[in-house]
Amino acid sequence: MSSWIDGHPAGTLSVKDRGLAYGDGLFETIGVKHGRPQLLERHLARLAEGCARLAMPSDEGLIRTELLAFSAALGEGVAKLILTRGDGLRGYAPPQSAHSRRILQGSSVPAYPTVNAEQGVRLFPCATRLAEQPLLAGLKHLNRLEQVLARAEWQDVEHAEGLMLDVSGRVIEGVYSNLFLVSDGLLLTPDLSRSGVAGVMRAELLSQAERLAIPVSVRDISSVELLEADEVFLCNSLYGVWPVRALQGHDWSVGPLTRKLQTIARDLLDC
Amino acid sequence: MSSWIDGHPAGTLSVKDRGLAYGDGLFETIGVKHGRPQLLERHLARLAEGCARLAMPSDEGLIRTELLAFSAALGEGVAKLILTRGDGLRGYAPPQSAHSRRILQGSSVPAYPTVNAEQGVRLFPCATRLAEQPLLAGLKHLNRLEQVLARAEWQDVEHAEGLMLDVSGRVIEGVYSNLFLVSDGLLLTPDLSRSGVAGVMRAELLSQAERLAIPVSVRDISSVELLEADEVFLCNSLYGVWPVRALQGHDWSVGPLTRKLQTIARDLLDC
Repeated sequence: MSSWIDGHPAGTLSVKDRGLAYGDGLFETIGVKHGRPQLLERHLARLAEGCARLAMPSDEGLIRTELLAFSAALGEGVAKLILTRGDGLRGYAPPQSAHSRRILQGSSVPAYPTVNAEQGVRLFPCATRLAEQPLLAGLKHLNRLEQVLARAEWQDVEHAEGLMLDVSGRVIEGVYSNLFLVSDGLLLTPDLSRSGVAGVMRAELLSQAERLAIPVSVRDISSVELLEADEVFLCNSLYGVWPVRALQGHDWSVGPLTRKLQTIARDLLDC
Repeated sequence: MSSWIDGHPAGTLSVKDRGLAYGDGLFETIGVKHGRPQLLERHLARLAEGCARLAMPSDEGLIRTELLAFSAALGEGVAKLILTRGDGLRGYAPPQSAHSRRILQGSSVPAYPTVNAEQGVRLFPCATRLAEQPLLAGLKHLNRLEQVLARAEWQDVEHAEGLMLDVSGRVIEGVYSNLFLVSDGLLLTPDLSRSGVAGVMRAELLSQAERLAIPVSVRDISSVELLEADEVFLCNSLYGVWPVRALQGHDWSVGPLTRKLQTIARDLLDC
């Protein structure tokens, strides 16, 4: 696994980094195919939104240049980009002269079982709930202890993902994916203005649905609505779309809209 | 500023550290006087509780030994201890063979204005609210973006601290201190079972109040109760107790119980 810091090969960073001290930063996990980062514009757009909301300085041109060069060197796999607020002094106050730090880490293509995409996955019902924090909702920031706790809830390979609700009981997302459902022909996905990570594949699928004139609603979703849905599926920017076939005692079959969007996601990731 | 990693002088750590990736770790900020860490047992106890709640492996004996040696080398100042879940692979799941990493950073004695302790401080009313997450409440973990956002709200030196409420409007704490109030002879401090950091000086003062038979209540506190309190003060393990003299248009004078507990805190930190 190779890694670069601020454009140069490096495997270590300063203990003063605010990413370590406070989780004061953002990240993107980007698929790399034929030496090119996939869904690059959407990843950069989300990162830019995160920088704006956290008032974190960044040089988008430099990030793009380094990501392209790193991906070219990696060839095939996954590039993880971490952007932190750089070194800090003691205390939460960001230094006046904060310089963000760019960290790139490469890894191999994930070995997802093909059955996940073909037949669907079983969801583990996580007891860990997501807190409601509108100031951070939607961002892929470095404060991810809730996901660490949720992912530690199951070890078996029967469950490919875990379902996370918020503290009020709303259905929000998977531990590392977004969730969609289909009810009476309507494509639904949870509103992420209080918690959750607004994934780039989620954004892409919402855009594609609009293009195809599929009716879409982004709003609060209850557990009952989830169980009564005709189709349920997960998405993320590495595997595209996985149908959900089971959650505890409940079963779903793989539906036509899931298959349609799965094909679209596959095409997006193949190009 | 010196730093040690796992007992050895080092200024950098692996980019794979889960403290950086997810804020998957804990920290303690410990005053060091005459080469000895102050309130050591309380810091170690809170760290141990954090490790238990996050299911993070740790060697308390080793942490204690290194902290004593580091403090002896530092002499006077502040020792910041960060404990992370060590290196990880890609993904939230903690590795089966996780080895926690111990990071120690030294800094000089903070230059707090003496007027803060003597005449009290003005609180900035932070707009950033604390999310309610019982699974993480009370812990001094590395997911601190809320504090970073709150501390970025003011730059003037007129405000020595910021007041943080939770998303439901309850009074919780300062950005880097705990809050107490005195009403009709009763010592009150917010319940921290949904948000906030349970400070070691807070624990110490609660224990001292019990010893002195001062009536104490730990419960939810509203903004109205805060404004109507007879005395208000802040505490942390570095400066002890600071009276609060103002919040927006409201003023308090420094009360007798505040002074009494301030003297006790000073004695605890002096020894």
